[in-house]
Amino acid sequence: MKQKIGLLGFGTVGRGISEILRDKKDYLNKKYGFEYDIVAVADFAFGNVYNPNGLDIPLMLEQAGNKEKFTKDLTNMETLDLVKNSNVSVWCELTFTDLNTGGPAIDHVKTALSAGKHVVTSNKGPAALLYPEMKKLADENGVKFMIEGTVCAGTPVINLTDGPLAGCEISKISGILNGTTNYMLTEMEKGMSYDEVLKIAQEKGYAEADPTGDVEGYDARGKVTILANIVMDAGIKITDVPCQGITNITPDDIDFAKKQGKRWKLIGSVEKRDGKIHTSVAPEMVDVSHPLAGVMGATNALTFATDMLGDVTIVGPGAGKIETGFSILTDLLYVHRNS
Amino acid sequence: MKQKIGLLGFGTVGRGISEILRDKKDYLNKKYGFEYDIVAVADFAFGNVYNPNGLDIPLMLEQAGNKEKFTKDLTNMETLDLVKNSNVSVWCELTFTDLNTGGPAIDHVKTALSAGKHVVTSNKGPAALLYPEMKKLADENGVKFMIEGTVCAGTPVINLTDGPLAGCEISKISGILNGTTNYMLTEMEKGMSYDEVLKIAQEKGYAEADPTGDVEGYDARGKVTILANIVMDAGIKITDVPCQGITNITPDDIDFAKKQGKRWKLIGSVEKRDGKIHTSVAPEMVDVSHPLAGVMGATNALTFATDMLGDVTIVGPGAGKIETGFSILTDLLYVHRNS
Repeated sequence: MKQKIGLLGFGTVGRGISEILRDKKDYLNKKYGFEYDIVAVADFAFGNVYNPNGLDIPLMLEQAGNKEKFTKDLTNMETLDLVKNSNVSVWCELTFTDLNTGGPAIDHVKTALSAGKHVVTSNKGPAALLYPEMKKLADENGVKFMIEGTVCAGTPVINLTDGPLAGCEISKISGILNGTTNYMLTEMEKGMSYDEVLKIAQEKGYAEADPTGDVEGYDARGKVTILANIVMDAGIKITDVPCQGITNITPDDIDFAKKQGKRWKLIGSVEKRDGKIHTSVAPEMVDVSHPLAGVMGATNALTFATDMLGDVTIVGPGAGKIETGFSILTDLLYVHRNS
Repeated sequence: MKQKIGLLGFGTVGRGISEILRDKKDYLNKKYGFEYDIVAVADFAFGNVYNPNGLDIPLMLEQAGNKEKFTKDLTNMETLDLVKNSNVSVWCELTFTDLNTGGPAIDHVKTALSAGKHVVTSNKGPAALLYPEMKKLADENGVKFMIEGTVCAGTPVINLTDGPLAGCEISKISGILNGTTNYMLTEMEKGMSYDEVLKIAQEKGYAEADPTGDVEGYDARGKVTILANIVMDAGIKITDVPCQGITNITPDDIDFAKKQGKRWKLIGSVEKRDGKIHTSVAPEMVDVSHPLAGVMGATNALTFATDMLGDVTIVGPGAGKIETGFSILTDLLYVHRNS
């Protein structure tokens, strides 16, 4: 069946997945028999567009670059009306993340699932705040709720535990969950101060103008919460996770670690111990011989402690336009192959 | 549907998966709704047993330990007759690997697939020699042919590329594909000779009495062949892969590498370059800062070079009774969830 794809949000991720779907059409059809149209886009800045026979993706990408309103296929349908009453079979929820309220994303996801549409998302809000409820709603409506993009989008994590590691009981997940701070710590080891490094990270686009989400550990905390709730059924809230960022790490701290043969890493972890779930985000000095110590730059790395395999570690890139776009694509393929 | 499982071979792997299925029954039912009986076992040493309502697994494991013939549920059915005409829904092919002819495993797999039974295997023979043919036969009969256990059984590889990395084009796979030789090279760095280390590896059960398959690189070559044919549709034969083992590496070679800040690793690789497939197995000196350099002991590590994510690396244990048993379990779960 040809999938009819809808995008909620046409920012960096929305354009990333649109570029991928534009450029890999033949490959995806040949390798996976995956055929699709993007038929709807809802975006605060650009308005809502809808064409049940497929939008003009190359034109949309051009128009988005010009930051002008779409003029073709504009619709008067309100967003939730579009979510419910269009011919979209799978919605990609790619609007901004609000980790406190879940933002409009929660309404988008609930409405889509209730209407029997699959949802694929990179938005941490609904996943971190309401995963069990959303999963139940999806099951009741016979559709999928896929969230690979919410945790370390460039590094397969959720689908790894759900698929290739299926059957293993996972007692601990720990690692480098935020590429931006790992890049900053890597650069600080070369002798720069926190402020100098932050400026470069912002220039490179790794850190936002307001870097709080990364440097205070909030982004990593959201990921720990999602992992705890999804992989370990922890039922915790974001505020349950003790969280410390890297803002207090000084060049002296870096030197202190170096002299002991160690290296600072911002480590997020979730562990099942004595029947309880323990979580944390905090900078840790790890020995240079530790597998995570060699993970440098804007890279993610997660180690899963399992009952049957001992430790299994995956290392991959941090989030970016194409990396997060990929996480959406891989979940779209899952929906295609399993529905 | 309750799966009716049959085991071809009741050696180390057959007992490993039997122990797992015995011990995780409640967990697998609760988490995945996976219900099963082992109804048939065919083994050269112990004879063929069959009970359509389920064999007594704990008793079977006890009897196997005593190396006596099974006395309960013995059947006169020949193996291929059992494969075809029992109520088994999924066969696990776990007999010995013959990389030259494929051994009896090829007849087992062909017969099972033709009879509309799923096949899960850790046997490199059918996968390395005839994967495309077996996959086609499975498709024609509406069943699965699953082979996670054939490549680095304790480290998810095949299912990683097929699932969480789906959508990525992989241009190169390289890494440490043989845990035994990696253990030996790690120990040689501590100052022991090749012969001393081999003896210890044999005592620990890492190396066979005849260690040729590991130390000459043949095991890694089989894995490279399977990866080339499955991930890159290379259509190559085992003998197409240039192969050099670790038997000629001396303490002097180890010192020479050390002095340059390098370390020997037996690297298997397959690469798509200029429209051609290039494969090799050979010892290489890698820089100590290289991600693979830190992979010590009986561990596997593979790096996938991809179009959308750059490099993604997975690190996990080498094959063992439970690790290979796990690879069978995870494929059984895949069959259960997708059929």
